[in-house]
Amino acid sequence: MITNYQVKGMTCGHCVSAVSAELAALDGVTEVQVDLASGRVTVTSAGPLDTGDVRAAVDEAGYDLVEA
Amino acid sequence: MITNYQVKGMTCGHCVSAVSAELAALDGVTEVQVDLASGRVTVTSAGPLDTGDVRAAVDEAGYDLVEA
Repeated sequence: MITNYQVKGMTCGHCVSAVSAELAALDGVTEVQVDLASGRVTVTSAGPLDTGDVRAAVDEAGYDLVEA
Repeated sequence: MITNYQVKGMTCGHCVSAVSAELAALDGVTEVQVDLASGRVTVTSAGPLDTGDVRAAVDEAGYDLVEA
């Protein structure tokens, strides 16, 4: 399944890499796509993701998940 | 000796890390300090640095050395 998130604070390709790496490490995640300009993050996963886990991963990378 | 440079394009702490790592790898460099807000990079080295080497290191990190 595919879920879209909004992440705040990413300013460059390194930020994209950091967020992507943290999200890719979540159980069941098979693909992460980040659009730096809009902050839109598209996560493909085997099943539904826990939003708290996603928020924690984004936070770990040093950024903020925008509440839906 | 201490030399100041101006680097363009750094937007976040990851950018600072990338530039610092490349410059720190230059022969004779003992310390690198980067001010993200101003783009000012202060390099401490055992002897004078070749500006071409500094430019190449900054370029390798993905940023531009501003001509003095």
